[in-house]
Amino acid sequence: MSTDAMREQVLAANRRFYDALESLDMGQMEAVWDTGGAAACVHPGSAWQRGWEEVRAGWEAIMASTGYIEFEIREARADIVDPVAWVTCIERITSSGPQGPSVADVAATNVFVLDATGWHLTVHHASPVIRPAPAPAPAE
Amino acid sequence: MSTDAMREQVLAANRRFYDALESLDMGQMEAVWDTGGAAACVHPGSAWQRGWEEVRAGWEAIMASTGYIEFEIREARADIVDPVAWVTCIERITSSGPQGPSVADVAATNVFVLDATGWHLTVHHASPVIRPAPAPAPAE
Repeated sequence: MSTDAMREQVLAANRRFYDALESLDMGQMEAVWDTGGAAACVHPGSAWQRGWEEVRAGWEAIMASTGYIEFEIREARADIVDPVAWVTCIERITSSGPQGPSVADVAATNVFVLDATGWHLTVHHASPVIRPAPAPAPAE
Repeated sequence: MSTDAMREQVLAANRRFYDALESLDMGQMEAVWDTGGAAACVHPGSAWQRGWEEVRAGWEAIMASTGYIEFEIREARADIVDPVAWVTCIERITSSGPQGPSVADVAATNVFVLDATGWHLTVHHASPVIRPAPAPAPAE
């Protein structure tokens, strides 16, 4: 398979992840993920959830508290070292929840591994964008 | 090489990254990174810096504004699909800067790729920890 074709596959898998979240359907979400112990997830402002049980519980709680959510994916870049790929992007999120509607930009890293049934998400790391790049943080 | 030996290599490369940052020495930092166009970095609260030129400028600015910085790495886990590895961890950061001393927890994903000269960092994604895991965010 050409690199371009593989990149299209990876970006499609990345989009399916956001489609699953937009659908608020845990079945779709589970189909996207590596459902083993290597799964790991950071939601904006949170620490690590590790292993699919913890990660799934996190998504279930988010889905239960979300009335509407839409992801516009910006600046998506897929880097591939077969059978691993990572997508870096900005999520522009429009959502409604208990506190009403909101729009927020979130920086995301999504690591995928290719197995016999396709690309599966093994790490999702999402973080609030407060300042534009490349303005550096005063201390990290 | 055994998986355990490779994991030790990866965790050592991860520690060298934090040692470089503690040393405030750009030469050490550059030696840790993939210095090509694939390099990508998110500092806490920021958007993506892409390509080594942008990433380096970010580190230079951080180093210039930092008097003292120390990283205690917690909950480090290395997952490896040779020649790619990703470390997920919590950085407990003690630093002094223009606003005085501070301690902060940061969630980090560090993606490494093995080349002829060793493991090099290609993605660093760091984000503020405001809530403990696995408490879910209300909306992402």
